[in-house]
Amino acid sequence: MRLLRIHTPDGLRDAVLNDEGKVQLPDGDAVDLSEVRLAAPLDPGKIVCVGLNYADHAAEGGQEAPAEPILFLKAPDTVVGPYDDIVIPRGGEKTDWEVELGVVIGRTAAYLSSREEALDYVAGYVLVNDVSERHFQLERGGQWDKGKNAATFCPLGPWILTADEVPDPQKLKLGLDVNGEALQDSSTAEMIFGVAHLVHYISQFMTLYPGDVISTGTPAGVGAGQKPPRYLRAGDVLRVWADGLGEQRNKLIASS
Amino acid sequence: MRLLRIHTPDGLRDAVLNDEGKVQLPDGDAVDLSEVRLAAPLDPGKIVCVGLNYADHAAEGGQEAPAEPILFLKAPDTVVGPYDDIVIPRGGEKTDWEVELGVVIGRTAAYLSSREEALDYVAGYVLVNDVSERHFQLERGGQWDKGKNAATFCPLGPWILTADEVPDPQKLKLGLDVNGEALQDSSTAEMIFGVAHLVHYISQFMTLYPGDVISTGTPAGVGAGQKPPRYLRAGDVLRVWADGLGEQRNKLIASS
Repeated sequence: MRLLRIHTPDGLRDAVLNDEGKVQLPDGDAVDLSEVRLAAPLDPGKIVCVGLNYADHAAEGGQEAPAEPILFLKAPDTVVGPYDDIVIPRGGEKTDWEVELGVVIGRTAAYLSSREEALDYVAGYVLVNDVSERHFQLERGGQWDKGKNAATFCPLGPWILTADEVPDPQKLKLGLDVNGEALQDSSTAEMIFGVAHLVHYISQFMTLYPGDVISTGTPAGVGAGQKPPRYLRAGDVLRVWADGLGEQRNKLIASS
Repeated sequence: MRLLRIHTPDGLRDAVLNDEGKVQLPDGDAVDLSEVRLAAPLDPGKIVCVGLNYADHAAEGGQEAPAEPILFLKAPDTVVGPYDDIVIPRGGEKTDWEVELGVVIGRTAAYLSSREEALDYVAGYVLVNDVSERHFQLERGGQWDKGKNAATFCPLGPWILTADEVPDPQKLKLGLDVNGEALQDSSTAEMIFGVAHLVHYISQFMTLYPGDVISTGTPAGVGAGQKPPRYLRAGDVLRVWADGLGEQRNKLIASS
């Protein structure tokens, strides 16, 4: 199932994407995607992000591949819908992109005893863009969270693909285009720590609740990794995609 | 006003602490604090924590005082009430305490133009214990969030003291006892970056919404700063206090 939510005059409404690629509403109507405005498909409880989880991305930043997963948090108030605008923050000099596989937790997970059981705690998968302002993240002192939490910095969706339709989460291609140019193009096969590893691992440090999202890290090709580095400007358009998870399209705008 | 919430058979109920120190219920009854179980006085939207914001605490950890505030996040699902138990996580070897002044945001704050206006965005103040597992935070790779987000790691309350009753948030004594021994005993006068500075500063990096909490850092005297270091064990009892903000009492228990 592909679970999504649409904006309506009466607020958000749950729907599914049917086999014809149309938005199936609970009352029986089916409409084209182009006729609705999609919201993020869920309001995450928390968003746990994994850093440097693709070896080629660590290398492009001049970093060693980590010995164990690096974790940080994005506040859920950064979430926007899959076609919403992304705002370049004031003072932002190096606003960057990161296509990521998001894991939606379906059952409370604390101290899981093995990686083998970890996927039983996954409800589904969702596309995440872990938008990052590198100047805030890396050049303003301290922890990465400072550059990960500007408003609109977490486009989510278009839908949750339920886990039963994903026999192996390590076999999904994913990528990102800037103004039509493919700059990220990889596969979750390239992750250093796979989904089962991450769910098991994170559950040792914090409790994962239904509706939490793990964003599993990004492959090479971010703006900071280009030669020379290249960052987002107002007017740029992103296309973010992954196998089975649909695509996001977002325009960059300046902060008002 | 001292705003609090109590557990009742019908769920959480708002109340205030009256001038006699009793819990005043909306229906007119007033009961002793000992007769109710207090919940955290709010469900924060996000919790933005400030690191190394007292020079003596930075020094006890062998760190330089930061040039600008260090920020990290605690997930709101770590919040417990002011008298609830704190669970030492499995694998936790260095569970530590941090008394902090919490700032409750009352109006949406984005890109504030000056420190002078920053306190207008503060609804009130609340006591926070930024419980930290140092082994997870500092010895397991990556960002501090890994050691800040175990379940129960954010005792909050007992109440919100509204900002009108706090003419100067930089003149509040605060401290923490472990098993009756005073190990933290300081004043918010010792902060490197005061409340107005922090609200203005954070609003440049992320949007602060009503109900968000800023936890403003801890003074010297944490377990990691003792000679030799001293960490929490099951059975330990904390008393955490600040001027006008009441006190927390929490027992440490082992993870089940």
